[in-house]
Amino acid sequence: MDSVIGIGKSARQAYGFDDIAIVPSRRTRDPDDVDISWEIDAYRFDLPLMASAMDAVVSPASAVTIGKLGGLAVLNLEGLHSRYEDADAVLQEISELPTAAATARMQELYQQPVKEDLMARAISEIKAGGVTAAASLTPQKVREYAHIVVEADLDILVIQGTVVSAEHMSTQTEPLNLKEFIATFDLPVIVGGCASYQPALHLMRTGAIGILVGVGPGAACTSRQVLGIGVPQATAIADAAGARMRHLDETGRYVQVIADGGMRTGGDIAKAIACGADAVMIGSPLARAVEAPGRGFHWGMATFHSGLPRGVRIAAPPLGTAQQILTGPTSLNDGTMNLFGALRTSMATTGYESVKDFQKAEVVIAPSIKTEGKFAQQHQGIVDYT
Amino acid sequence: MDSVIGIGKSARQAYGFDDIAIVPSRRTRDPDDVDISWEIDAYRFDLPLMASAMDAVVSPASAVTIGKLGGLAVLNLEGLHSRYEDADAVLQEISELPTAAATARMQELYQQPVKEDLMARAISEIKAGGVTAAASLTPQKVREYAHIVVEADLDILVIQGTVVSAEHMSTQTEPLNLKEFIATFDLPVIVGGCASYQPALHLMRTGAIGILVGVGPGAACTSRQVLGIGVPQATAIADAAGARMRHLDETGRYVQVIADGGMRTGGDIAKAIACGADAVMIGSPLARAVEAPGRGFHWGMATFHSGLPRGVRIAAPPLGTAQQILTGPTSLNDGTMNLFGALRTSMATTGYESVKDFQKAEVVIAPSIKTEGKFAQQHQGIVDYT
Amino acid sequence: MDSVIGIGKSARQAYGFDDIAIVPSRRTRDPDDVDISWEIDAYRFDLPLMASAMDAVVSPASAVTIGKLGGLAVLNLEGLHSRYEDADAVLQEISELPTAAATARMQELYQQPVKEDLMARAISEIKAGGVTAAASLTPQKVREYAHIVVEADLDILVIQGTVVSAEHMSTQTEPLNLKEFIATFDLPVIVGGCASYQPALHLMRTGAIGILVGVGPGAACTSRQVLGIGVPQATAIADAAGARMRHLDETGRYVQVIADGGMRTGGDIAKAIACGADAVMIGSPLARAVEAPGRGFHWGMATFHSGLPRGVRIAAPPLGTAQQILTGPTSLNDGTMNLFGALRTSMATTGYESVKDFQKAEVVIAPSIKTEGKFAQQHQGIVDYT
Amino acid sequence: MDSVIGIGKSARQAYGFDDIAIVPSRRTRDPDDVDISWEIDAYRFDLPLMASAMDAVVSPASAVTIGKLGGLAVLNLEGLHSRYEDADAVLQEISELPTAAATARMQELYQQPVKEDLMARAISEIKAGGVTAAASLTPQKVREYAHIVVEADLDILVIQGTVVSAEHMSTQTEPLNLKEFIATFDLPVIVGGCASYQPALHLMRTGAIGILVGVGPGAACTSRQVLGIGVPQATAIADAAGARMRHLDETGRYVQVIADGGMRTGGDIAKAIACGADAVMIGSPLARAVEAPGRGFHWGMATFHSGLPRGVRIAAPPLGTAQQILTGPTSLNDGTMNLFGALRTSMATTGYESVKDFQKAEVVIAPSIKTEGKFAQQHQGIVDYT
Repeated sequence: MDSVIGIGKSARQAYGFDDIAIVPSRRTRDPDDVDISWEIDAYRFDLPLMASAMDAVVSPASAVTIGKLGGLAVLNLEGLHSRYEDADAVLQEISELPTAAATARMQELYQQPVKEDLMARAISEIKAGGVTAAASLTPQKVREYAHIVVEADLDILVIQGTVVSAEHMSTQTEPLNLKEFIATFDLPVIVGGCASYQPALHLMRTGAIGILVGVGPGAACTSRQVLGIGVPQATAIADAAGARMRHLDETGRYVQVIADGGMRTGGDIAKAIACGADAVMIGSPLARAVEAPGRGFHWGMATFHSGLPRGVRIAAPPLGTAQQILTGPTSLNDGTMNLFGALRTSMATTGYESVKDFQKAEVVIAPSIKTEGKFAQQHQGIVDYT
Repeated sequence: MDSVIGIGKSARQAYGFDDIAIVPSRRTRDPDDVDISWEIDAYRFDLPLMASAMDAVVSPASAVTIGKLGGLAVLNLEGLHSRYEDADAVLQEISELPTAAATARMQELYQQPVKEDLMARAISEIKAGGVTAAASLTPQKVREYAHIVVEADLDILVIQGTVVSAEHMSTQTEPLNLKEFIATFDLPVIVGGCASYQPALHLMRTGAIGILVGVGPGAACTSRQVLGIGVPQATAIADAAGARMRHLDETGRYVQVIADGGMRTGGDIAKAIACGADAVMIGSPLARAVEAPGRGFHWGMATFHSGLPRGVRIAAPPLGTAQQILTGPTSLNDGTMNLFGALRTSMATTGYESVKDFQKAEVVIAPSIKTEGKFAQQHQGIVDYT
Repeated sequence: MDSVIGIGKSARQAYGFDDIAIVPSRRTRDPDDVDISWEIDAYRFDLPLMASAMDAVVSPASAVTIGKLGGLAVLNLEGLHSRYEDADAVLQEISELPTAAATARMQELYQQPVKEDLMARAISEIKAGGVTAAASLTPQKVREYAHIVVEADLDILVIQGTVVSAEHMSTQTEPLNLKEFIATFDLPVIVGGCASYQPALHLMRTGAIGILVGVGPGAACTSRQVLGIGVPQATAIADAAGARMRHLDETGRYVQVIADGGMRTGGDIAKAIACGADAVMIGSPLARAVEAPGRGFHWGMATFHSGLPRGVRIAAPPLGTAQQILTGPTSLNDGTMNLFGALRTSMATTGYESVKDFQKAEVVIAPSIKTEGKFAQQHQGIVDYT
Repeated sequence: MDSVIGIGKSARQAYGFDDIAIVPSRRTRDPDDVDISWEIDAYRFDLPLMASAMDAVVSPASAVTIGKLGGLAVLNLEGLHSRYEDADAVLQEISELPTAAATARMQELYQQPVKEDLMARAISEIKAGGVTAAASLTPQKVREYAHIVVEADLDILVIQGTVVSAEHMSTQTEPLNLKEFIATFDLPVIVGGCASYQPALHLMRTGAIGILVGVGPGAACTSRQVLGIGVPQATAIADAAGARMRHLDETGRYVQVIADGGMRTGGDIAKAIACGADAVMIGSPLARAVEAPGRGFHWGMATFHSGLPRGVRIAAPPLGTAQQILTGPTSLNDGTMNLFGALRTSMATTGYESVKDFQKAEVVIAPSIKTEGKFAQQHQGIVDYT
């Protein structure tokens, strides 16, 4: 299947969401008969949704909001809420920084050490909201703070980095052995990211209940540009779904595949599931909710690396409430709102009943949607409305 | 033939009109010897043309105009003409709405219920014009209003939705069984849309005389962006043509394949036929006729869905009369006018005699035409005029 | 080799100049040792160059200039020089028309009938200049005016239309039988255009000494947009070269393959030859010579079709003398000047000695050069200068 | 593996850096455990870096700076430093030329003859800085000036042209026989450029210790546009790596593959190595150092060819110090600074230990990163930060 890059190197073709489209089947279905709920471990959610562990997206307060809307928000336990007594004041300051000064000041702000009591407080605030509580730690820090999340009675722990592998090599420190850690840890664990078959399979073998799939998922992604690393998301998800099948065959255990990143519209979410995802983790679309802690801005957690930043604070002007963004209704027609209403309509239109069922949808490789082109065409009055 | 998206998913490559071009054969032909007429059921048309069932394109009056020019216009029986005694006043209001207020006001306007007497009146106005009368109903409503179209002596009924399947699933309502409905219905029926082989084949088996092919046909299509659904139109048509061949072999009955949507120029129409279409259904090019009911604007019928709009009112500034747009003459050189003169010239230049014959034309996969690029090149004086 | 467009249609992939690049061989060569001369029939030219039969490019005067520079200019015998006693005045008027009025006025100007005495006078002016004289007629008119070119002692006749086939079908008129015509005609004949294997082979069998290859060669070509017709030029030339090989095998006669259109730079000309062309026919690059009859404008001969124009008068601001454009020297670095110096350098750099030898050069399929992108990159200072 | 361009021509698909991305393996690694040092002949460098022999990039002074930062700068022995006693004054003048006058004046400035004593002086200045000294000569001049570099005790000689072959053909002069020259020459020699398997293999057989790979490497490269020549860099490197393997098998001698050109970001450098390069040669990124002799401008050495210039003086506004550009730290997030910190992070993230090890990294063919698109997306707040 591989193409030849040159005499000394082969590679396979990878595909992103913009490269594919979902094909209707020979059935259609009432939207009311479509089930988009999601179950993982002992938990059930109305939406197959995790909210990204980013400071501009998930605070204890917005985690409760998202939870009540049917999703699972993940608090970044190494973010501002664990570094500052009054994180809201810091978030407010960030939202008021002039663009030119933003990076330097944010590099400073993230130098502040995390505090164990703030971690515990944040978790308890989420639990007090009556929703399932999830939070993330990096592989570097998870052993140090694991006791806190257990004591705070977290529901699901997420161990997350840009890339997390089952086998981290280090001569400097004793590297985390994920498999041993998870085996002895009291809470269910989701790990990621990964982006291809073997790494996904090895992460599944650590005992995680779910894996996050997505490394440099978009063609314009910073990881692609700065590091050269990335797998277009449709291929990464399909690979992980293949690993899930093999792991299920080997062990009888079904590990959830959660597509993380690269989704902007309801159509992207539908494609993620049609490629094999059980659920999606989204950040930037939720950063545009009026309830978002980012207050009109968004940034990734690798953005303010002190030596090699990979990202920038960008404007994320509010579009509507989290509810409007997730389940509508909306009067916007570009796919950025009512994301899960769109998923439901997509499944109904193509005749599928459940998320698991929709993973079997036929997809075609289709020319990319280019946003620029689209607007150019609209000005000329030639957009098709089928 | 399939490509591997990832370990767990395959897909085939699909192609749109911009991805292909028609190749001259070893013959050429006099344009006067080219026959572009179209026959369906007992009806014959000078042009292989249906006009889309959109309020900005087809009113009873414009249906007569288009009919006299040789095409078959389809009135949307669930549109404004069936909701308002004075639809022209409403269309006028829409054309005067400021952009910011358009969506909200149009959502309101389309809340008005349809009225059976207005449906009947609209049909009779078309028939009074002396042309073949066609009108559309959605699968949801067709049983309720079928009696009206029979009583009003409609010639051809179109049952149309974004996607229509031969097998609609619902636990809430008794779903329409298309095959039973068509078998017992007195008028010839065209159904659609569909966009691939199996769905097309199953629609043909319902007894329809023609099927509409096109779901999210363009790369910039709203269905692609909001729902993730769509099949590039060249592939969708070729699939439907394949289904037509198999259905003909199985039953001896030839079902017409009508390419619906995604065509902007005469070249696109030629490509639709070269991919296997018997006729084309076009909307936005006709919305730019001075006679168009949209008065310089255009919108799709899914545009004003109350919870998940998929489209927007866009400017469609008049280019010329419907006659100039369909059969010329024109002084415009971008392919948007004299659409069927261009089809005739295309067939003559490549040596084909009839629409059926032209379906056999050789096509190549060729780099996309990018409108932006084209204008950029013109500024530099490098456009080729061959 | 074919791809499947859909169940009912196959197509092969075609390539344009922007899709390919030439690969250096394991040899290099002194530019002074490279031979780019061209021989056809009894004629020898310093450059493998024909100038297009377009009114903005070739007048009797510019034909002499181009001939003295080493190329073969083709006068359009159905153009302005055959319609007006004082064609220069008409060309001057065209160059002064405001943009909005240009098309309409030019449609009028081309209504003027051609005059036999003016045809003869134009040919004799070229011959008086001491260069090889070539001129073109359309297949529709060639029988009517053939006697003139014989009497005027033309050297080479070009029979040219957008598409010319060996078998033109008509029930209205007695169609031209090219093979019979050429067999009984006293002058050597070049015919075209064509754009794929079978049509090229059949044109070769008419007895022509060369064929013109190019129909809608560029992605932005008007024939592609208006008519849907076109073959990317690299593929069209390679097909014609394949036909040349078969025809040589069948008959022992070598028919010249002349790439017509779609070339803007020296790199494009090099690629045309590397795909198998024996020579190139160029128009728009020469329209930018200060000597060009178009006086800063350019238009194709199908531009002013009265019912379906396919083209427009575009600005072609002068770049330099015809000599600078063809053989330099130049201070421009975008490939649009010193076209044949670039060809010589390209052949030397990749190690080839003659045009015939260069047809064997290795090419790769390489990502397109996008002009827009290039300028964007230059602003950011990232263009590579290798 | 070849595609058919047309009946008479085949070609294989080639890939550039923008067409590929690196895939994480199932391991990750501490950045501190990653070794990015480079050894060639008797020399060891902290970075797998050569700086291009361009006047805007390498002066004797900047060569010392780059050497101390861990790279190997190559001085162009036929550049301004060998033509002018006070090259700095000339570089200053160039930086002050108005754009319109730059090309003409620079054509004049490069007419000044080179002087042997200035060559020797430049080399001794580099050596006095205590770093490894490398300098380049063209194949045309290397025999004439070889004695100088030997006498000046240069460490490594680079013989470089746009394309250098093992077999240069000339009837005019006695061509350089590279193999004989290198065999009898006292210093280690690196030669290039080349861009595919056979030419790379033949250059290796000349006895060179390393070859430069890159001819028209970028899609926007001037060689591609003016000459039609070029091989996308990922393919060129992979081909050279294949040649290295065969040459090693045949001779037991390992010849270094140095990717030259087409790299703008740390990600590009990572991809060059993942395709098989042992080191990279970069120019334009270093032209943006505050220490760069180009003083905010950059030009290639083929830019001021008197008859067919291929390049232009372009702005290269300073980004930071050479140290910041090469090894950081940086606050820029677009990949253009801390290039080798990015390489280290890329290798750590994907689990590789050494440059040689990283050559085995899995790559995928992935949709291009389009700079334009990226900025467009950022404005809309949809960039993903994974």
